Order: sequence, then C-alpha cells, then structure tokens
Amino acid sequence: MSTQPLTQEVITERLARIREVMSREGVDALLVPSADPHLSEYLPGYWQGRQWLSGFHGSVGTLIVTRDFAGLWADSRYWEQADKELAGSTIELMKLLPGNPGPLEWLAEQAPQGGVVAVDGAVMAVASARQLGDKLEPRNVRLRTDIDLLAEVWEDRPALPDNPVYQHLPPYATLSRVDKLASLRQSLKERGADWHFLATLDDIAWLFNLRGSDVSYNPVFVSFALIGEHQATLFVGPGKIDAALRQALERDGVSLRDYTQIHSALGALPAGASLLVDPARVTCGLLVNLGSEVKLLEGLNPTTLFKSRKSDADAAHIRQAMEQDGAALCEFFAWFESAQGLEPITEVTVDEHLSAARARRPGYVSLSFATIAAFNANGAMPHYRATEQSHARIEGDGLLLIDSGGQYLGGTTDITRMVPIGSPSTEQKRDCTRVLKGMIALSRARFPRGILSPLLDAIARAPLWAENVDYGHGTGHGVGYFMNVHEGPQVIAYQAATTPQTAMQAGMITSIEPGTYRPGQWGVRIENLVLNREAGQSEFGEFLEFETLTLCPIDTRCLEHELLTVEERAWLNAYHQQVRERLSPLLAGAPLQWLQTRTAAI
Amino acid sequence: MSTQPLTQEVITERLARIREVMSREGVDALLVPSADPHLSEYLPGYWQGRQWLSGFHGSVGTLIVTRDFAGLWADSRYWEQADKELAGSTIELMKLLPGNPGPLEWLAEQAPQGGVVAVDGAVMAVASARQLGDKLEPRNVRLRTDIDLLAEVWEDRPALPDNPVYQHLPPYATLSRVDKLASLRQSLKERGADWHFLATLDDIAWLFNLRGSDVSYNPVFVSFALIGEHQATLFVGPGKIDAALRQALERDGVSLRDYTQIHSALGALPAGASLLVDPARVTCGLLVNLGSEVKLLEGLNPTTLFKSRKSDADAAHIRQAMEQDGAALCEFFAWFESAQGLEPITEVTVDEHLSAARARRPGYVSLSFATIAAFNANGAMPHYRATEQSHARIEGDGLLLIDSGGQYLGGTTDITRMVPIGSPSTEQKRDCTRVLKGMIALSRARFPRGILSPLLDAIARAPLWAENVDYGHGTGHGVGYFMNVHEGPQVIAYQAATTPQTAMQAGMITSIEPGTYRPGQWGVRIENLVLNREAGQSEFGEFLEFETLTLCPIDTRCLEHELLTVEERAWLNAYHQQVRERLSPLLAGAPLQWLQTRTAAI
Repeated sequence: MSTQPLTQEVITERLARIREVMSREGVDALLVPSADPHLSEYLPGYWQGRQWLSGFHGSVGTLIVTRDFAGLWADSRYWEQADKELAGSTIELMKLLPGNPGPLEWLAEQAPQGGVVAVDGAVMAVASARQLGDKLEPRNVRLRTDIDLLAEVWEDRPALPDNPVYQHLPPYATLSRVDKLASLRQSLKERGADWHFLATLDDIAWLFNLRGSDVSYNPVFVSFALIGEHQATLFVGPGKIDAALRQALERDGVSLRDYTQIHSALGALPAGASLLVDPARVTCGLLVNLGSEVKLLEGLNPTTLFKSRKSDADAAHIRQAMEQDGAALCEFFAWFESAQGLEPITEVTVDEHLSAARARRPGYVSLSFATIAAFNANGAMPHYRATEQSHARIEGDGLLLIDSGGQYLGGTTDITRMVPIGSPSTEQKRDCTRVLKGMIALSRARFPRGILSPLLDAIARAPLWAENVDYGHGTGHGVGYFMNVHEGPQVIAYQAATTPQTAMQAGMITSIEPGTYRPGQWGVRIENLVLNREAGQSEFGEFLEFETLTLCPIDTRCLEHELLTVEERAWLNAYHQQVRERLSPLLAGAPLQWLQTRTAAI
Repeated sequence: MSTQPLTQEVITERLARIREVMSREGVDALLVPSADPHLSEYLPGYWQGRQWLSGFHGSVGTLIVTRDFAGLWADSRYWEQADKELAGSTIELMKLLPGNPGPLEWLAEQAPQGGVVAVDGAVMAVASARQLGDKLEPRNVRLRTDIDLLAEVWEDRPALPDNPVYQHLPPYATLSRVDKLASLRQSLKERGADWHFLATLDDIAWLFNLRGSDVSYNPVFVSFALIGEHQATLFVGPGKIDAALRQALERDGVSLRDYTQIHSALGALPAGASLLVDPARVTCGLLVNLGSEVKLLEGLNPTTLFKSRKSDADAAHIRQAMEQDGAALCEFFAWFESAQGLEPITEVTVDEHLSAARARRPGYVSLSFATIAAFNANGAMPHYRATEQSHARIEGDGLLLIDSGGQYLGGTTDITRMVPIGSPSTEQKRDCTRVLKGMIALSRARFPRGILSPLLDAIARAPLWAENVDYGHGTGHGVGYFMNVHEGPQVIAYQAATTPQTAMQAGMITSIEPGTYRPGQWGVRIENLVLNREAGQSEFGEFLEFETLTLCPIDTRCLEHELLTVEERAWLNAYHQQVRERLSPLLAGAPLQWLQTRTAAI
C-alpha cells in the first residue's frame, strides 16, 4: 500500500459517498476497525478500508463515521502522524487515553436512542461484537454486522493477495502435519467437539506446515481451515497452491477448497454437530451461516497452545538461527563502528546495512518486523519507524536504539540493543543500566510451572520502579517458530489480564524487553528472547526457568558499572562469555575482533 | 463454644432429625457453610450450625447433607482434625484440592435432576448464591434460600452475643463519625445511590467509631447499618448500647433500631430508591424483603476502601503501638532465652508468657488472633494451634515459629519470628535465609500507585522460587487499625484474582510474610507489617513504597549469612539499628540487653 497522504478533497468525497450509502441503509453510525477476517496484526490491502476512508496510514486505529461526525481513535504512538494525515479532512483525532471514552464507549453514549450502528461483521471478532452489542443495548441501539458498506463505494479496492504457499519442511518442521492433526483431533475429542473452525493465519500455517508471504513480516497466507474427525479442509484463493503441493496435502488427508467457500462449508455443517471456535479469534460474519442446530463450543484454539510450546527439536534449530542472527549483528556492528565519522550514517542506513547482513545468513527468509533504528529523541517513541522522508542522522552524542529481527527457516528472532554514539550522558547510561538490571532480574528468575505470565512482570520492573521509572508497553510477548514475532497465549505485562491461558509452560519463547522512554530526549530498551525450560521438580511442585536464546553483546560502554550488583555483573560476564564462544566460530576478521572487544568481562 | 468432640450417636441423631425436616420440605440436599449474616471470619455460637450438625470444630468447612450422604469439605490444614472428629459419624471428609470438585461443583453434579437444594439465605452471600444457582441451572435443580432447616432441630442453639458496644475515641479515633458519614454520603452520591446497606462488622465498627467484643480477636459487634442521605441507622441487639452512647450517637445523627428490624427497614425502602450493596459482603436472605421497585447498585462497600487507607494521624498511633508491641516481644524473648534449660517450656507456655507481656503494655486490648507457637514439625502447619491436650515441648534442636499479634487502641499488630532452639541445621537456616531474602526484596520494593496488589507477589517469591521452593498461602493480607487483622481490599498473593479493588493506595497496611513448610519436619515464616507511603511523582506517574512498621529483631542465628547479598545485609543492619533505637527507650535490664545483643550488625 502506498502511504502517500490523501488530499483533503479525496477524503471529503469518500466520506460523502459512504454517508449516502449509510443514509440509504438507515445506518446512523459506521464503525471501521483495523481488522480483517483473520484478525491479523498485518492486513492485506483488501482489508485496509479504514486507511482508504480516513487517509490515516497508522497500523492501528478505529474510524467512526456518523451523519455529522467522523473520528479516528488512535493511541499515543500515532498522534503525531494522525494529526498530519487528518489535517483538513473533517475527521477528528480522538486520543485513546485512560479516562477518555474509546470508540465502543463513544458509540454507546452518542449513537441515537433506538438508532442503528453498522460494522462489517467479516472483520469483527465474535467477542468484540458481543461487547459492542451489550454496550448499545441499554439505549436500544441496534448493531448490524451483515453489511459491508465500503464494498460499493471503494472502487479501486485491492485484490486479495495471490502469493504462492510453500511447505515448511523437515528438518526445520519437526512434527508432521499428520501428527499435528492427530493431536488437534485428540484435543477436540476431549472437549466434545466434532468440528473446529480456524481463521487465524498463524494457527493454520503451523497446523499444516505451510508458509506464505501474503502480509508483511509474518510468513503466513490468507486462508481458513475446517477440521473434523475425518476431514481437514483448507480454504485458499486460486493459484496459491500448485499441483505438487495439492497432492502432498491430499496424501496427508487435507483437501482444498476455494477461500470464498468457507461460508457454505460452515453452513453445511450437519444439525447436531458441535463446533469449537475461539470467540476472540473468529469474526461474527463468518458464523452467520451456521445452522441453528449446530452447537457452538467456545475456547482457545488448541493450536495456539500447541504452537506456543516449542519441541526440543525446534529449540535446537532456534539456537542455530540465533547464532546466525547474532553473527549478522556482529558484522553489522563491526561495519557501523568502523564507518562512524567516515561516512554519513542515518537511521535508514542502519536499517539497510543490518537487513543486508541478515540476508547473507543461511536459512534467512525475511525480516520479522520493520527495523526500528531510533537515535536519541526518536528512541523515545517505542514504535518509531524511520522513513526516507523523515529520519535522523546519527552524529554527536547520545544513544541509538536498534530493535530488529529476522525470519529463518529454523526460527524467528527479535532483539533490541543500545549503541553509544559519541559520549552518552550519565543519565542516559543510568537508564541503560536500570533497564539491563530489569532484564537480568527476569532472565535469572525461576517460577512455578503454570504461573500466569503477567504475574512475573514485577520482577523485571522492580529495578526501574525503584527509581520511579516505568514504561507503558509489556515486558514480554510470545514469539513463534518461523512464524509471527508476536504470538500468544503468554504475555509478561502487568497491564494484561491474568487469564488461565497465559500460564507459563515448558517450550514457550518470550521476549524480555524492559525500557525507559523520555519524550523528546531518548529512549532505552534492551531485549533478549528466552525459552521456558524445565528446572526440576520438588515437594513444592514443578519449576521452570529461562534459557536466554538471543546471542549478541550488550554494549557495556552504555552502562554505569557501579550500579550493577556483584550478581548482575556475574550474569553479564557469563552471558558475554557464552556469546563469544558460540558466535566466534561463525565470524572472522573485523566482526570477530569486534565480538571479542564487546564481550570483554567487566 | 466447647470444642469437645461430639459422640457418634449425637451426630447420627442430629442428621436423622435434619433429614426428616428435609424430607418434609422436599429438599434433596442441604448446604451448611461456615458463615453468618455478616460473612465474618469468626462466628458467634449462634451461627456455628455446621459445627453443631457435623461435630467438626475447624473454623472453615462446608457440610452437605443429602438423603443418603453427608460430606464435609475442608482444606488441607483441617484434614487431620476432621479425620478425628468425623470418625464413625457417617460424614465423609471431602478433601478440598485443585482438581477435586468443591461443594458447589459436587452439588451441580450430584443433586438429582429437577431436585431442590437448600441453604439458609441468611448466611450465603448474594454472589455465592448466584454462582450456585448458575451451577445448578443446567440440570434444572432449584435453589431454595428461604428456609433455615436447622432452626427447628437445633434446640440448644446459643443466643446472639450481648456484649456491650463502646466508642473508639480520640486521640486514637482520628476522624469523627460525622466526617466519615459525610465521606460515605459523598461516595454514594457519586455512584447515584440513595441508600447503602452494610452487613460487614468491621465496616460498621469503622464507620461509627464503635468497637465491641462479640467474636474472638476482632473488636467488632453484631449489627447492621442502613445509611441514607439524611438518615443513618444502626441495628443492634438489646442492651448492647447504653443510654450515654445512644445519646452520643443521636447527637451525631445516628439512630438505633433493634438488630432484627433490618428486614422490615430494608422492606420499607421507598419505590424508586437506589440501594448500594456489595454482593460479596451481603447475604441473599437479607435482600428478599426489598421492594421490586428498589434499584440495586452493586459495588465494593465504600468504607472498605476508606478504612484500608490509614491517615497520617492513624499511622502515628500505629507506630507507637508497634513500639509497645516490639517492647513486649523483647520482654518475652529475654525471659524465653533465660528460662531455656532451667524450666520446662512448651508451645503453650510460650503463648502464655507472650500474651502476658503484651497485656502489660499501655493501650493493649486483646490478642488480634490466636498465637501460633509451633516447634519443628508443628511449624510446617501454617495454621497450627497448640492446645492443652496436644502440644510440643521445646527442647533439643530446631526452629520455633511464633506468629502472634495484639489489638491496641492505636493499632493492630501481626508478626512472625523464627527462634533457634539448640543448634538449627544448615537446611533449616537456609530456609530461614531464603524466606528473609523474600521478605527483604518486597520490603524494599517501590511500585506504581494503583498497581493490583497480587502482581507484586513475585518479588517476594523470586528468592524462594530460585531454589524450587514455594508456599501455599498468600504473601500479604491487609490489616485494620484497631480492627480485624485480616481486611481487604488489597492482597499480595499470586493465587488471588487481580480485581480492580486490589489496587495499592497510600495508607494501606499489609503483611509481608513469605514462608517455607516441610511437612513432618519444620516450617519457616517471617512477617512484618508495612505501610504504603508516597514515594514521589515522576514523568512516569506516582509511586509508592513500604514503610516497615513492625519493630522486633530478626534472629540472625537462624541465618546462613553468606547467602545474603551486600544489599540484603545492609537492609537487615539498617532495620536492626532502627529497632534498637526505637525500642531501647521502652526497655531496661535483661530485655534491653537482649535487644542490644539481637540487633548487632552482621
């Protein structure tokens, strides 16, 4: 998608046309979320209707259009961008803040008594639609989810992506799709479900050992899946699966149907059948065709838990991918340090050189998200992205934050490091040190198997809280295996709900990434990925601990060494020793020299 | 209440009579919880029906009687006692364990399709009754809460307590009841409530600055309260409030009615009135008389949050009470150490001497709970209580755990200390040291104001988890101000629900009491009370920290000093210095000598 700003005239005209359709259909308010039928983080152009209608290109935002109002709800990281892109459009920026009404609350308060609110049911989760319906009900407002009002006015709507699907093969795929389907069917049996409907692209890609490139960064493909005791059907667009792959799938008991056939397939489920769906991961528009005799069972997709628990064989591949990724980072950093002062370096150059270093590594497929290279004040925006039009040149004194990652056939990486530029200030170094203390504290932690992951967050934050510092994002997200860099069900964030599915289990991979953000000045974040591994059983139960997977020096020039305790120094020195031992065999020359220098004990 | 075991014949006869009444009323199953209309921790004899009917004297347990089954649900701390007391009674001990059905689940599974379950609505919280009703509904079982089946068979039922009510006066009461009522009314107004019904005894005692002695340890009195914009009515039994107090209350706008009149008072609320109640703190039997035109608003009792936030003036009194309590402990410990080897000392002697030392202190009112003095294996039972019939003599080698506390006019104390007897083993000392590390870690913590308190628990447990050790109870409970030693809404326990009301606010007092229990061997717990105090505001928000209130040496002979970090030793030495400075002025002779010895720096 182009991110070129739309003119005020274009937006005004599009709003006028959508209001005509609303008026004809008797709709008082239209809600356009950033979502698709798969509730994905990255949307194909076909589903970027909110962007088309509002001109706001941020990845997350919700548009509401009424007959005499249009507002775009966005969180703080998008306010600057939204201010620019909405200027003169008549669309108001509605700031998402604790205490301010969100879009659903706004609708509950503002929709006319007895009126009609519409949202395309194809892109709204069952659970969200219920929540909205409940909020509208007291004022007798009706929620319509049966119409896509955009369809008729969006003339140049992009097509659905038609990129080919390919197999994730052994040795990297360590469990066959036949075995995965058997586990899933066992789980369905235990829950009393005859059928299971999957709409989430990473669950589908994992289950069938298939990958694609229909959206940025996540190696998934647009599809649905319907699994029964004896059938497994994958619904994909035409031309995405070639004859050989079709045969391979059929041999494994997987049949193919067109993507659009999912509606009739769900409608054809026999009376009396029970269907397992995750109401947070399936949109309501997809379930409207279900026969009234089909019994809906609700729960987490079993594959969400399966894929979160990496096998020992997966872990072995991931360790290798981490070595390759760490070697790429060493090559990049060796170049970066040698080039400073000799050639102009910007945040964009950093991205280019780092991406190129990764691309040279065996097994590399793509980036796992857009690189964040953010110098000084730009680092204070946790989701900053430099562009050709707007970026900083890296010179003078301060801190460069680099958050980056790659997709490899044997794993997914995500790492953040701080780089000193010139002479960072004492305050900058203190921030780096406290963030590191938090990362070390959680990295060293043991905890009971099954603890709800949000409950671990305080361990990472305590060293920051001690100085009245905190950060607005979570400390850790789950990470896939050559799969989405953000995956559930675990999340280390005190702001997150402590639901039973967030329980920590062996084999899960999670990031540990505390930070400190000083708006207008600088930002600090340090991030490693860690693997939950068994730490033994005692009379008090089973315990887990973290194996740090990420391998890359943590620049000690950014630290105030005397703020580290004896135990923290010991952890850092041991980590650096391991990094040196495991990356040295993959490096030579300047990168090897850089590795040795930057892993020296303190 | 007598705790003498009932004979098998008595229980059998009582069960037979209750079954007759059940049969006559068409009831298939009777549920008898450990509860009263105030949902108190300690029950007056009048409400100990579960004990009367089952012969089980443990303080928490649930009885279910059907036509051909009787079972008593109890958690692990009561199994030994229940085994003994239920022997030969035909009542089965049903062990409360994760995975086993609890009493409500059991009823949902076992009650006959279309049958009737009865529970006395007078003693079941609205929220619990709803939960039970929901569980019974799928099998079309009806829940009756309108009959007290015990009433007719329990001939020697004790009377309601008639102990006098007295005032909590200035300077200890630092806010007048008039001011408290004004704050409450402001809160009702903000919630749109015309009336508020209070059934919880500590909320009532706090609101009216009154105290009583109707139950053990908690200085409360049996009563209800109904507060409107212009009226405040206290419902108490006859003879509990004398003429002078009645006049004082009336001057402050508080009128009195008989305890039993609460039903008609609730029934007389005008049509259209809105009534605020906490569904978890009011029983369903009390709300049956409400007119159908009364609008029920549900939420936490405002007084629960008010009383949890101690004022600066309260805190000043509490610090003094802590000094008195600490001095009493020093006197006790000085005697204890001098008497060892010279006279026989048992767990019961410890309780007697310690209670006597507290009773000599100014402002002392009563114990705040039954002292736990538990030697070696007895210490492994977190709720152990020595009796005349069954207790250990303190001799040989090991650890003595003493958990005790007092009610003072200026505060409530609760402290646990470990005492070395002879030569504790290295393993015992390691357990003490790790528990202390956990207590220190949380005591030193800062955290954002408003954090949900269960999220802090990991900080205390991390040093124990590091050794694959954990404990089944919470790390911290709220503590009242000359009030219940267990009060909400905050709770530091990773097992607890992270509800919004558990948010940490300035002025709250909480225990920090990690532990380690090795069944059949020994138990360790170390406990201080801490006060939430403001720790400043930064660009990242407001922060709180803990002020340690409890003042008593932590015996360093129980510790493996080399397991403590530099920072932990510094905390311990600073704590001991403060204890020495603040308690010395209250002591002389041997207790002062003991204090000086036991607060020496390590």
